[in-house]
Amino acid sequence: MTAEISKLAIVPFVSVENMMRLVLKVGVEAFLTGLAQAIEEDFLRWESFDKTPRVASHSADGVIELMPTSDGTLYGFKYVNGHPKNMREGRQTVTAFGVLADVGNGYPMLLSEMTILTALRTAATSAVAARYLARKNARTMAIIGNGAQSEFQALAFKALLGIDKVRLYDLDPAATQKCMGNLRGTGIELISCTSAQEAVEGADIITTVTADKQYATILTDNMVGPGVHINAVGGDCPGKTELHKDILMRSDIFVEYPPQTRIEGEIQQLPQDHPVVELWEVMAGKVEGRKNEQQITLFDSVGFATEDFSALRFVREKLQTTGLYEDLDLLADPDEPRDLYGMLRRFEQGMKE
Amino acid sequence: MTAEISKLAIVPFVSVENMMRLVLKVGVEAFLTGLAQAIEEDFLRWESFDKTPRVASHSADGVIELMPTSDGTLYGFKYVNGHPKNMREGRQTVTAFGVLADVGNGYPMLLSEMTILTALRTAATSAVAARYLARKNARTMAIIGNGAQSEFQALAFKALLGIDKVRLYDLDPAATQKCMGNLRGTGIELISCTSAQEAVEGADIITTVTADKQYATILTDNMVGPGVHINAVGGDCPGKTELHKDILMRSDIFVEYPPQTRIEGEIQQLPQDHPVVELWEVMAGKVEGRKNEQQITLFDSVGFATEDFSALRFVREKLQTTGLYEDLDLLADPDEPRDLYGMLRRFEQGMKE
Repeated sequence: MTAEISKLAIVPFVSVENMMRLVLKVGVEAFLTGLAQAIEEDFLRWESFDKTPRVASHSADGVIELMPTSDGTLYGFKYVNGHPKNMREGRQTVTAFGVLADVGNGYPMLLSEMTILTALRTAATSAVAARYLARKNARTMAIIGNGAQSEFQALAFKALLGIDKVRLYDLDPAATQKCMGNLRGTGIELISCTSAQEAVEGADIITTVTADKQYATILTDNMVGPGVHINAVGGDCPGKTELHKDILMRSDIFVEYPPQTRIEGEIQQLPQDHPVVELWEVMAGKVEGRKNEQQITLFDSVGFATEDFSALRFVREKLQTTGLYEDLDLLADPDEPRDLYGMLRRFEQGMKE
Repeated sequence: MTAEISKLAIVPFVSVENMMRLVLKVGVEAFLTGLAQAIEEDFLRWESFDKTPRVASHSADGVIELMPTSDGTLYGFKYVNGHPKNMREGRQTVTAFGVLADVGNGYPMLLSEMTILTALRTAATSAVAARYLARKNARTMAIIGNGAQSEFQALAFKALLGIDKVRLYDLDPAATQKCMGNLRGTGIELISCTSAQEAVEGADIITTVTADKQYATILTDNMVGPGVHINAVGGDCPGKTELHKDILMRSDIFVEYPPQTRIEGEIQQLPQDHPVVELWEVMAGKVEGRKNEQQITLFDSVGFATEDFSALRFVREKLQTTGLYEDLDLLADPDEPRDLYGMLRRFEQGMKE
């Protein structure tokens, strides 16, 4: 380097490799538990956040979204795509990265990979919601859709709710085998099922987490018995749903942020005025969550910007003790702030010397 | 490293240092000319872009904005802040970075610093607009506000319009001195002025580029004679304007994207239905730009997402021959796309071996 880079110009960067190191150092279940705590803390101060539905750019093959939010002190946003066809080309359906910034001066304070982090925060959010909505004695969960998100869901529900039996089903048996292999040795009893119907038998919680960008019916009405909590994760953009409308009509529906969920969630199948409960209101004790053992509760999860904010905030805290980041020369920082052009010229001089 | 990083996981990253190398390698004026060409090309296919006003998060001290756009093949967005008080703390008022991504699979293809690049693209856009709006024989420009943007404006107007005389004024004489020093040896005749009134004397083009976040009156009505082109760069967010309303009433006003400019530009002082012309329509020959030598033309520049898109596209092309980028491990890329958790576990195995 020909010029010393100012400290103000440096943004800590968490690469995929450092994220993996961080998750393994903390431990997957402990990481999920820490994330869940950060997410819950932020849901409990819901009204202090600037909230807006994510800004989506749709194309024939998928969607690219920006998800900003701010609590007035920190600003965060995530870039995330969703391209179901990617899998066939050896790419991830969902990739993501995010930034945390200082509201006071607008400078980014953290750039992080978020493909892995999104998988973790989605699972942590599901588990946080289920702690408020599932029956207290829930121990068995069905997971329909055994792709990239499935293991994280299983581990989050083990860590946060004590789920010890998971019934797995995927249209593709190889996905179920992969999931079973990955979860071996975690202490969860695993049952491979040959149909969604079989998977939901005896399940206290049903997690649907399939990836097709289309209206699908992963669950039909007859498959959902009284007292079940449905954790609907896969239906998360316009035209992509997983549950039959009749299930929605029988359920009490809990959502993150109604203006976004009405566009993207399972409830896009329902009239705009169909009653839903905001998850933060349940957490804050403003509205009752589960009322009895017979009620069917549905968390219509689409993923909201505050959850990514919480995840970035959690990661940033962990960096201070682990040092698992690199310095990124992302911000121009001239000696004299009005002298951006002069910085260029002085750099040129430095190159010549 | 304990694991080989897949090529799919890598995003080219242009640091501040590499951006400076790139600009110097190409040459500042040639870089501005190339940028201007890319910006003009994209204005000429305006209707092929997804357009939306930027997504702003305002606070007491400033604003953080996301500026996305897409042409259906590429997607781009910029993160940019504006914090006028930063200068007093030794920070930039504006810092920025941006991403270009593939609409087909949603994967980022480029992450770039954009603090320097924004200064260049803003100046290039101003010069492109002035080529359509200023008098053909314009040779003298006044620049009011001699901060970080001023040298780039001078050089862009030299390179693209043949401006050879620049009259400088800033409330702070030190800023003018800095600008004069930086532009020495560029072949531009430089005149330091002690008032805005003095600066505009004999100017064919008046560029206003001050930074205060407030309603200011840099130009009053009597200062603007017939035939002048006003390049109003500094008024670019709600509550921040530079021109007296009477000037707007006498001018033909040209804007980038009306829904954004009506919120952020000088025209926030005017009724929502005040007639304005879209710059792209002038470029495409749909609407006449300058009609005669007496007309006052005003480019009410606020900066639009397509300009950043053009700039990122231009930088990306230049990387292929210069190699002035680093590889960033930003995207998780498991061997088997559905096996994100397995990637984590295999990485752990690799660490132990």
